[in-house]
Amino acid sequence: MTEKNTPQEYIARNKENFLAGWFEALRIPSVSALSEHKDDMRRMAEWLRNRLSSAGLAARLVPTGGNPLVVASSPEIPGRPTILVYGHYDVQPVDPLDQWKSEPFEPTIRGGNVFCRGADDDKGQSLAHLFAAESILAARGELPVCLKFVYEGEEEIGSMSLESYLQSEEGRATLAADAILVSDTDMAGPDTPAITNGLRGILGCEIKLTGPSHDLHSGLYGGSVLNPAVALCALLGKLIDRNGKIQVPGFYDDVVTLTEADREAFAMRPFDEKSAYAEIGLKQSFGEPQFTVLERRGARPTFDINGLTSGYQGEGGKTIIPSTASAKLTFRMVPNQNPAQLFENLRAYLAEQLWPGVEMTITGSQMSSGFLVPLDSPFIQAAARGIERVFGKAPLFIRDGGSIPVVSTLASALGADVILAGFGVEEDAIHSPNEHYALESFYRGIEASVAILEELGAMKYER
Amino acid sequence: MTEKNTPQEYIARNKENFLAGWFEALRIPSVSALSEHKDDMRRMAEWLRNRLSSAGLAARLVPTGGNPLVVASSPEIPGRPTILVYGHYDVQPVDPLDQWKSEPFEPTIRGGNVFCRGADDDKGQSLAHLFAAESILAARGELPVCLKFVYEGEEEIGSMSLESYLQSEEGRATLAADAILVSDTDMAGPDTPAITNGLRGILGCEIKLTGPSHDLHSGLYGGSVLNPAVALCALLGKLIDRNGKIQVPGFYDDVVTLTEADREAFAMRPFDEKSAYAEIGLKQSFGEPQFTVLERRGARPTFDINGLTSGYQGEGGKTIIPSTASAKLTFRMVPNQNPAQLFENLRAYLAEQLWPGVEMTITGSQMSSGFLVPLDSPFIQAAARGIERVFGKAPLFIRDGGSIPVVSTLASALGADVILAGFGVEEDAIHSPNEHYALESFYRGIEASVAILEELGAMKYER
Repeated sequence: MTEKNTPQEYIARNKENFLAGWFEALRIPSVSALSEHKDDMRRMAEWLRNRLSSAGLAARLVPTGGNPLVVASSPEIPGRPTILVYGHYDVQPVDPLDQWKSEPFEPTIRGGNVFCRGADDDKGQSLAHLFAAESILAARGELPVCLKFVYEGEEEIGSMSLESYLQSEEGRATLAADAILVSDTDMAGPDTPAITNGLRGILGCEIKLTGPSHDLHSGLYGGSVLNPAVALCALLGKLIDRNGKIQVPGFYDDVVTLTEADREAFAMRPFDEKSAYAEIGLKQSFGEPQFTVLERRGARPTFDINGLTSGYQGEGGKTIIPSTASAKLTFRMVPNQNPAQLFENLRAYLAEQLWPGVEMTITGSQMSSGFLVPLDSPFIQAAARGIERVFGKAPLFIRDGGSIPVVSTLASALGADVILAGFGVEEDAIHSPNEHYALESFYRGIEASVAILEELGAMKYER
Repeated sequence: MTEKNTPQEYIARNKENFLAGWFEALRIPSVSALSEHKDDMRRMAEWLRNRLSSAGLAARLVPTGGNPLVVASSPEIPGRPTILVYGHYDVQPVDPLDQWKSEPFEPTIRGGNVFCRGADDDKGQSLAHLFAAESILAARGELPVCLKFVYEGEEEIGSMSLESYLQSEEGRATLAADAILVSDTDMAGPDTPAITNGLRGILGCEIKLTGPSHDLHSGLYGGSVLNPAVALCALLGKLIDRNGKIQVPGFYDDVVTLTEADREAFAMRPFDEKSAYAEIGLKQSFGEPQFTVLERRGARPTFDINGLTSGYQGEGGKTIIPSTASAKLTFRMVPNQNPAQLFENLRAYLAEQLWPGVEMTITGSQMSSGFLVPLDSPFIQAAARGIERVFGKAPLFIRDGGSIPVVSTLASALGADVILAGFGVEEDAIHSPNEHYALESFYRGIEASVAILEELGAMKYER
């Protein structure tokens, strides 16, 4: 059935080969948040460079102040668009370790899924394009577009190095492209492909309250010293109300009202609320009652506490007034909100609400805007045709709640459209214990990438 | 000057000996809260038994479900009262370890103080009575009273074993006494001795909120799932207001109003608020504005968070909605408040305030009433005369903010008056890094114990 010497046939013959490559990449514990993994970051970058070179691309590492960038390109083809594939080779930390059913960095197949940190986010997803390029080059000897790659090793910690590379002329010239192809998002459902045309931005910060110079005996001092943990709860407990409304003044001022069309697009997505919540062990949703769950996730700003730390956390008790208390916070922002402005509003609000008796420091960590891609982009339309060829149905266009901060920067620095064609599903538990990615998603991703590249090569294109 | 063969002379000759004994005890890391120290608890109990035996008392270990009790007694002397010395051989955990200037379990002398976990609380304090008995028996061959000892190894974790020993007839018979002598409190100032006639009670509990079955990606789910850390802050942030008033309904119903005499007693204590706060790195106090700092500490109920735990606490960030969030809480209660009733009120209040979308579990840990000893007790008066002999001035009678829960139980189970004669000072940093105890306090404690026992032996006594 399959035509001889086609990329599709190459994929069919190389399933073991691709699986082995993916597993090699998964076994490298490239956790960017932990400095102990510094060497693993480099090993991972070198692995990608070598695989890109073997596929037939000109690949190299770009040294940075942090983890190296991996860049690669094929020869330019006149009359064809230049497509930049973006992916990230760093992964989230694995704790809580005791909740993993198998080793977090040993890919393990159970029920058609590969369990491993990074299985989906973003090794499983982003290798699709590398293996697609390998398949096309092996079968045809040339690519249908001018193809570039950039893999960064800091997506989970703020993309500092890629952001600063994009500040340089050299960086922008190296990565210059007409469209950016990214697989780091979810489909609308297990059999419902999607192109994500909107992402949320993010504002991350850490708050630390400092009280007495050392932990105090809560009997001797209790009632006469402001407990930093109490002050922290009082402060953060006021940031959001029980309807999910964030209390920082001006927080919603720039949020664009959802149109009827926007709301229809959300309503079209297959979503069984009851079973989706049962899947994560919950009986009910939370949040702004005037919006549906998918609207809250995709189009509304949010506030979350990612971590709380104070005092004695061991076995038993310890009757102290802790000296400090701290929290890691993230806000998700929707398109048109300005994270820098909101960080200032937040800082002012917290300073005003803070009870006297403790000192507060706030350190910003991540900051990026949300964005929306116009659906009439010819690159988006070509990618949609490619996806339809593989899945047998057209992708939905969806707005996703996640953030890929650097994608906003890439789009504006390169003046390129962004095609967010992801093959994961919500149940993949990315960032959580037992992250996994379906074998089917992995192979279908490679096939879809081939089809997308072919459609992009066939489009009417004028620079 | 010193009379030959007096206990005082024995003390003067045995300073090195007592110091060495104290250091031996301090080097045993008897942390009751951590099960890894189980063997150290037993070693510490055996050390005490051996030292009591060497002093000439009949000493033995009483096995319990937890750490052994050490009990000892001298022969009964007709016409003299029976005095029970209570002390505890367990100590608090040492974290945060990085804030210690010397090893926490290696006693180190700096500036006239011995730095070590347990230096004051309660090894340094409670050994005073053991060494006093040793001195009197060495010098005189007999004690002025019938003297009993009980050392427990669970004071810092709730005194479960001693509490249950006191439920038994055997326990009550073994410990039967007319008065209980305890050194586990502070003086009113470095040169102002005190007898504590009131202690606060305590109610300790741990609250855990459970949301989703695993940590979720805060981008994919944010805005649609109640974040347990957010719910915890909202819940605990409402437990107390910025004036230090606890919001649990009925919390103050049974609190006895301070009389003018009570307030005068507090006002008499030497206390320089500004320097006391500067000492702990603070510019201002916190709490109920209608009460002085010492009143807030000694006679008002309080709420403290001793520890907060949720989500990611490592380096960098992690964009999750944590699956759980928990807090360790303690309330201090004043005499007449009923901790069991208040625990029920607390549980009901929290259940009512909790936002829907997370499950709450509350586990009670410690529970004891506060108490007040009548100042006209002849035992208290005799102890005051003994202290005056050594310090050259009469002790103040003070109400302390701490809790020694088991002391309430001992007093009521044995029908005995409690003499809380402590030789520590507030600056000793008990329960904190760099706990210390002055060499002078250590030796003066032994001398004062001798004098107290002599005065108790000389008092007009009828059983």
